[in-house]
Amino acid sequence: MTDKQPHTSNSKPSNTTTSPSHSFADLHDAEIFAAHEGGKIETHSRRPLETVRDLSIAYTPGVARVCEAIHEEPERAREYTWAGRNVAIISDGTAVLGLGDIGAKAALPVMEGKAQLFGRFAGLNAIPIVLDTTDVDDLVHTIEAMAPSFGAINLEDISAPRCFEIERRLIESLDIPVMHDDQHGTAIVITAALRNACQLLNRRLKDLKVVISGAGAAGVACAKMLIHAGVRDVIMLDSRGIIHPDRTPLTQIKQEMAAITNPRRITGGVAEALRGADTFIGLSRGHVGEAALQSMAADPILFSLANPDPEIDPDLAYKYGAIVATGRSDLPNQINNVLAFPGIFHGALAAGAKQITPAMKLAASRAIANVAAEALDVEHIVPSPLDGRVAPAVSAAVRAAALASK
Amino acid sequence: MTDKQPHTSNSKPSNTTTSPSHSFADLHDAEIFAAHEGGKIETHSRRPLETVRDLSIAYTPGVARVCEAIHEEPERAREYTWAGRNVAIISDGTAVLGLGDIGAKAALPVMEGKAQLFGRFAGLNAIPIVLDTTDVDDLVHTIEAMAPSFGAINLEDISAPRCFEIERRLIESLDIPVMHDDQHGTAIVITAALRNACQLLNRRLKDLKVVISGAGAAGVACAKMLIHAGVRDVIMLDSRGIIHPDRTPLTQIKQEMAAITNPRRITGGVAEALRGADTFIGLSRGHVGEAALQSMAADPILFSLANPDPEIDPDLAYKYGAIVATGRSDLPNQINNVLAFPGIFHGALAAGAKQITPAMKLAASRAIANVAAEALDVEHIVPSPLDGRVAPAVSAAVRAAALASK
Repeated sequence: MTDKQPHTSNSKPSNTTTSPSHSFADLHDAEIFAAHEGGKIETHSRRPLETVRDLSIAYTPGVARVCEAIHEEPERAREYTWAGRNVAIISDGTAVLGLGDIGAKAALPVMEGKAQLFGRFAGLNAIPIVLDTTDVDDLVHTIEAMAPSFGAINLEDISAPRCFEIERRLIESLDIPVMHDDQHGTAIVITAALRNACQLLNRRLKDLKVVISGAGAAGVACAKMLIHAGVRDVIMLDSRGIIHPDRTPLTQIKQEMAAITNPRRITGGVAEALRGADTFIGLSRGHVGEAALQSMAADPILFSLANPDPEIDPDLAYKYGAIVATGRSDLPNQINNVLAFPGIFHGALAAGAKQITPAMKLAASRAIANVAAEALDVEHIVPSPLDGRVAPAVSAAVRAAALASK
Repeated sequence: MTDKQPHTSNSKPSNTTTSPSHSFADLHDAEIFAAHEGGKIETHSRRPLETVRDLSIAYTPGVARVCEAIHEEPERAREYTWAGRNVAIISDGTAVLGLGDIGAKAALPVMEGKAQLFGRFAGLNAIPIVLDTTDVDDLVHTIEAMAPSFGAINLEDISAPRCFEIERRLIESLDIPVMHDDQHGTAIVITAALRNACQLLNRRLKDLKVVISGAGAAGVACAKMLIHAGVRDVIMLDSRGIIHPDRTPLTQIKQEMAAITNPRRITGGVAEALRGADTFIGLSRGHVGEAALQSMAADPILFSLANPDPEIDPDLAYKYGAIVATGRSDLPNQINNVLAFPGIFHGALAAGAKQITPAMKLAASRAIANVAAEALDVEHIVPSPLDGRVAPAVSAAVRAAALASK
């Protein structure tokens, strides 16, 4: 990639000087809007419709035979409709990128972009659906109603803590895979990156002291997944400081997190959390200063993932971190969900899975780590988002994990 | 078209002998199912995604600029998302083809087929959505919630009388075009065909005595549209006979129809209705025998549209009718909605119309009639469903009608 800037400690990426708030300083509105003119996706027929006979097969009277067959045996919809190969990308527009609650219509370009990525990396058909409601019951009910149209559902950009209940209820009620990508896609890629960082630094997941800044969708899923992957010491921070069981009030999800994190019962803020820790994972709008970094264990792992402004200034991150990852495409080790979701949904659909289980997510994470492991160094702990090997590897791993548990 | 059978009065189409219940006697399951394998439509990216820069424009960070622009001015979604060029085809699976209430999942192949036709004839992107609910409030609410995803909504295969209320409420609440095609698409093509039949027979719409058999979605819309187009004497029949105001009980929609039809206050059944009538439009599962045909005025117009079994046996229809139309693709004058809906939605979207008005529907009907008028004869009162001139002509007429009323 010609536009990736190599970095060493103490070097500051040149284009952050000119535009600290964007990864691509030279992206201009004219170019962006031109690329969105008329939308970014389209639908096509997969079969010719040139003769009356073609019409009579695809539509009446021929199609009636297929309808009858599915009516008799609903499972056949997987084979004879596009629902076997499609994914709905569903959002209520409440937590869009860093823009927040911008509503359904304004969220649509993000969902279209994601649909492009599903097609580009996994050959799946993806359908952006934005919903003009933010009520949890209403969202669950609306999505349940439209579910027979789809093979799987990717929930996207739904604000916390609503996203946890919505995902949980849909997984319970639907017989197709449902995954909120802002939670699990992020967690899966972070876990892969952390696994490879440990490999390089000769550490073990179970010995790490991990601090996660941010208890939103990504932070919660990341904590759960790291614990599932073997990490024993995770401390979570929200805007009020370290989460621990004695803090009140705590939302339901934070009570859950308090119960499974913070084994040393630390209290306080980011300074107290980072003291002696060896891993920082930033998934918030917080800020981490130099003093806090100096208080960490030697050669820490710093995943500073807030976009567009990382929690740790890149200068400082490269000065103190043994391994640094960000969310930015112009810096090494970009933690990008696109490494996970295309292959995960492809593998789940290929297996005919009814859920995306923790085992399938862990398999996805290992597969991502394994692709990078072939040429591992401190600037390549995860594959490039454009690496064509990733989605097939993830799909195969997820499919195998799904079939193993059937 | 090699598979169209030319007919003259008294000739019986050869393949109805071997298979009276299908238009194509030689369509076999193997061929039909093979053509449905993996579904009939797919989504594609309209832009390359080859470089990190491509990703940064289509997705983060570039896409955020487009989101912000739409958040500021929602009308921009028409220009910068695919919602300006897409149509949702939405069904609850309650009235699918002649199969009836087969449910959401089994209805999906029909909606996919229709999506293919939208693409094939109007270059529109169409998205099949099947809903797992049949409650009217629930359907209206669910469709309202997902409306920001789409440029227009084609309601499909929703049973009467629910379809009338659902369409009315959505038209009132949404600011995008909504049309139940089983009602209006059918009515538009029938009106075009009847206009050309009058032209050939040197009759006038306002002098016709029209009998419509069937008071479902298509029958009701057809009666309304013919009256709007100038027909003054319309009699409607349902399974209980002629609809008239003194009949009880009548559903709300049949009360409406009783008020605007049957000016001569005829009572009875199909025999009484057809006596002296010059036009029969069959949109039911009814049956019309030879005696009733003999009681009609001389040289009647017979549109016997039930599929796959027309109300009038083709033998008798060609024996008595001056002009015969059916719903079958292997007989001349096929009344096929595909002549209407692609151009109607294309024209409505091109005009930025918020509704599909009666004037737009009438314009569509005239445009269809005009295409056939270029080479009019008794076997060509409507264009072939494959005639590529139709959709552009309909779109232009609908767009002009929409803009004229703005």
